[in-house]
Amino acid sequence: MKIYRYPVKDTWTELVKRPVFEREEISGLIAEIFAEVENKGDKALIGFNKKFDKAETKSIAVTEEEINNAENELSNDLKKAIQQAKDNIFKFHDSQNPEIQKIETTKGVVCWRENRAIEKVGIYIPGGTAPLFSTVLMLAVPANIAGCEEIILCTPPDKNGAVNPAILYTAKLCGVSKIFKTGGAQAVAAMTLGTESIPQVYKIFGPGNQFVVAAKEYAQRYGVAIDMPAGPSEVLVIANEQAVPEFCAADLLSQAEHGSDSQVIFLTTDLKVFNETISAVEQQIKDLSRNEMAGKALENSCFILLNSLEEAVEFSNLYAPEHLILAMDEFEKYIPMIQNAGSVFLGNYSCESAGDYASGTNHTLPTNAYAKNYSGVSLDSFVKKITFQHLSKRGLQNLGKTIKVMAEAEGLLAHKNAVSIRLKK
Amino acid sequence: MKIYRYPVKDTWTELVKRPVFEREEISGLIAEIFAEVENKGDKALIGFNKKFDKAETKSIAVTEEEINNAENELSNDLKKAIQQAKDNIFKFHDSQNPEIQKIETTKGVVCWRENRAIEKVGIYIPGGTAPLFSTVLMLAVPANIAGCEEIILCTPPDKNGAVNPAILYTAKLCGVSKIFKTGGAQAVAAMTLGTESIPQVYKIFGPGNQFVVAAKEYAQRYGVAIDMPAGPSEVLVIANEQAVPEFCAADLLSQAEHGSDSQVIFLTTDLKVFNETISAVEQQIKDLSRNEMAGKALENSCFILLNSLEEAVEFSNLYAPEHLILAMDEFEKYIPMIQNAGSVFLGNYSCESAGDYASGTNHTLPTNAYAKNYSGVSLDSFVKKITFQHLSKRGLQNLGKTIKVMAEAEGLLAHKNAVSIRLKK
Repeated sequence: MKIYRYPVKDTWTELVKRPVFEREEISGLIAEIFAEVENKGDKALIGFNKKFDKAETKSIAVTEEEINNAENELSNDLKKAIQQAKDNIFKFHDSQNPEIQKIETTKGVVCWRENRAIEKVGIYIPGGTAPLFSTVLMLAVPANIAGCEEIILCTPPDKNGAVNPAILYTAKLCGVSKIFKTGGAQAVAAMTLGTESIPQVYKIFGPGNQFVVAAKEYAQRYGVAIDMPAGPSEVLVIANEQAVPEFCAADLLSQAEHGSDSQVIFLTTDLKVFNETISAVEQQIKDLSRNEMAGKALENSCFILLNSLEEAVEFSNLYAPEHLILAMDEFEKYIPMIQNAGSVFLGNYSCESAGDYASGTNHTLPTNAYAKNYSGVSLDSFVKKITFQHLSKRGLQNLGKTIKVMAEAEGLLAHKNAVSIRLKK
Repeated sequence: MKIYRYPVKDTWTELVKRPVFEREEISGLIAEIFAEVENKGDKALIGFNKKFDKAETKSIAVTEEEINNAENELSNDLKKAIQQAKDNIFKFHDSQNPEIQKIETTKGVVCWRENRAIEKVGIYIPGGTAPLFSTVLMLAVPANIAGCEEIILCTPPDKNGAVNPAILYTAKLCGVSKIFKTGGAQAVAAMTLGTESIPQVYKIFGPGNQFVVAAKEYAQRYGVAIDMPAGPSEVLVIANEQAVPEFCAADLLSQAEHGSDSQVIFLTTDLKVFNETISAVEQQIKDLSRNEMAGKALENSCFILLNSLEEAVEFSNLYAPEHLILAMDEFEKYIPMIQNAGSVFLGNYSCESAGDYASGTNHTLPTNAYAKNYSGVSLDSFVKKITFQHLSKRGLQNLGKTIKVMAEAEGLLAHKNAVSIRLKK
């Protein structure tokens, strides 16, 4: 833990700096994987499953039988939980569907926007220790609301060539069209280029390790879009004297357990809360199954005592956290001051894990200070907003001179002519 | 012109292919320019002005005097035109400001989104033959509505070290905070890295040549966001027997005059309109000042006769044009079928130049088939949508079990603990 008491503002820029991770030079490897997938298709993917995931997979596509069997392997409690989370995520994301609003900008000139789904989207779900079926919910539910025709999912098989049943069950529940056993950069390559079984998509979503992140960057050269650039997960907690130190500690640790590179920052104006939160963290970490990982993350964490909540929000805006928790009863006043954050948790009962799973907001959020210029995933991420305009003859008459004068000033006479020829008629 | 009569669907994929432009290997040059700007700041920019733009510039910042003088150099007609265009762009983009909508997803759990401006944005306006003050309107007006604190603009100086007065006048009118004389990749580098006079920004907007495009791509490595990937401008016109061939020809030519790489596609179901539009293009091009450029663009243009309007829309969706014109009286029926397009112009009086300048819609649109996965610039491009959630104690009680069950199934016990510890209290 790094502990700072009333640091002067001059030092903040230093304090908000993320650790720079040595980016291994893997672009050559990524290019090779893309070439292999392009040339050999499914066969390449089966080979990579063996090589990287130690898995024998005869076919890449998950069978209907596998998907249907998954349901039996989940407890009723888990199925009910997934359903409630899905309902909330649905409600919140469905509310992001705008009414069409026609605006008459000049008499006879009407403009509006309409949403159209991105027709083909791909979801990547990493393997590893935690089967992230919650991320399936966060990506497939809005894709479904948007009306994406093809929603495919790639995830690496385990050593038995199987996919975690919670992932399969959730994918089916949320309308994923096809599921494939392939992971890492090769999964991204397959969704970018297409193979015999895996269809090409227009946009790729989902988290992953440095290979997946690099492959998503690389995929953009082929015209594919991606959800957002990635970095390690983060939380910043702002607490005043109304905060409960044990709650704060639990939130900080739930971030820290994500991985040893997780970013954890605690800001408070209250000395008692400051000291007690530090103690509570030290206490609670002992009982965690992932305490080694959390411990490593805590080494880089910052606990900072500040003079005022205004200062704390200012610091937070400079840092631009993925998750921001306002651990206090009276948070209303500080909402308008928040400028840069991915998702904000208000009050002592809004823990980050609520948003990670089930409050309804999306947990795919900008990290690494990208909250300054990117939004988290929402319904918008799965649609294009197309603009429409209709000019009546009268409308063009009302706007014609303006267009002609501007076109002429820009030296674009054919632009002017498109108006003149119509007004002459 | 390439002319096709009733091509079978199998051939469409070939027909919608954009020409692949040899991408010169310029990434080394871009890296050098970034390094030079990083090391020498303004001095580097002054050097580049001399080297690339043959301009002597003592200082990079445009002075207040230069800005104020610009007004005198514009005709009243042009000032009035710019004002009407600005008003329309303002009306349409201001209507994109959503009401905050609080959604109670579970009793006691309330979620919503709020827009926050991207604090610092940079606009690039190319130099060259056409002074694109219309692009200043398209980018600065929504930036202003969004509430971006710092809106800076970079544009190359002419040989006298001056900036076109229409650009200066429009920038001032639209609330641009600072204007700088620098162009090309070095302008993008300066906005990415900052110099003595030019502040660093979080997002860079605006068109440009291949060096600007490559520099914008490169800038993303520094955490800067960009408006969208770029390609040559395009129009696709769908006409039925209600279309006016001369109007269609004028629209096709107003696209063609943009540059020799412009993409122009004409689809119709009517043989008479087909033949007459081709004749009208050949006729009208003679009178154009930029006819050489337009002529080159037309060499690659496609004129295609199809069986039905449904087929034409299907073809258009496959191509995903930046601009789509429905040249007909009865267009309503085809709107829901449009899946991929940047901006759509409806009816015989909605010429593309209306949207280029003054209807109110944005002219910064996805090209090169990016209309399949990207939207054009809108108010959304200048904001982040931050999610907020508030759980009351009751709210967490209602959601607690779900979060705990899901966290446990993902093996994230600290996430579970953040709930348990609160519910125990």
